[in-house]
Amino acid sequence: MNLALEEARAAAARDEVPIGAIIVDGAGKTLARAGNRTEELADPTAHAEMEVIRQACALRGEPRLPDCSIYVTLEPCPMCATAISFARLGRLYYGAADAKGGGVEHGPRIFHQSTCHHRPELYPGIGEDQAAALLREFFQDRR
Amino acid sequence: MNLALEEARAAAARDEVPIGAIIVDGAGKTLARAGNRTEELADPTAHAEMEVIRQACALRGEPRLPDCSIYVTLEPCPMCATAISFARLGRLYYGAADAKGGGVEHGPRIFHQSTCHHRPELYPGIGEDQAAALLREFFQDRR
Repeated sequence: MNLALEEARAAAARDEVPIGAIIVDGAGKTLARAGNRTEELADPTAHAEMEVIRQACALRGEPRLPDCSIYVTLEPCPMCATAISFARLGRLYYGAADAKGGGVEHGPRIFHQSTCHHRPELYPGIGEDQAAALLREFFQDRR
Repeated sequence: MNLALEEARAAAARDEVPIGAIIVDGAGKTLARAGNRTEELADPTAHAEMEVIRQACALRGEPRLPDCSIYVTLEPCPMCATAISFARLGRLYYGAADAKGGGVEHGPRIFHQSTCHHRPELYPGIGEDQAAALLREFFQDRR
């Protein structure tokens, strides 16, 4: 999660909402790392999770990553949670919960839907305090 | 919807699940058109809707497309429905309903969630018969 937090800090330095993600393979090797890039790319789909899924799949030449884990600093939104399911990621570790926009334990609770065909193992609250502090500081500075 | 159906047919010819999408601006100009590319790119996020949203936003240099409409041959999944909401698309026209994987009138019903902050106008069932026939033929041929 430290690498994901680094990516979140780097995103903040680029004036992006500070969220970071990494994908690690079954041997513990980091396959992909990214921060949020929605502002830079003017792309509403360029969340950190989407970026690392696309990177890791491109690297492997495979659309499924069942041996891999994704670490994200914030609870994924419904778009990213669904993408995590499509990518068949084995484990999801995330930091702060997101009551307003989350899609794992809030809102549509994507992995609990009958139309969700793969549910990763879930590990919430990992590095939660640091991830939440980063987001709080970012939005305070902009008020 | 005819252009979206053309893109779905082109996807089938590339051995992709036949789903197509286009984005049209407020003046009726087609900004982006794409079929599903998940196999070609080994990218589980490369649904037709995501491709056209990314294309149209890149073209405009804007992450929001409130004056635009998206036409898709199948009910969007929860990932794409959420992306449509993030892109603030004004209107969503879609063809066949998707009881197994849809996220608009099935499963998480994304636009009805309290965590969904933008809901497009919804026009289901447009070109439904042709879109459904394309999918049926595609999966029959592969059995």
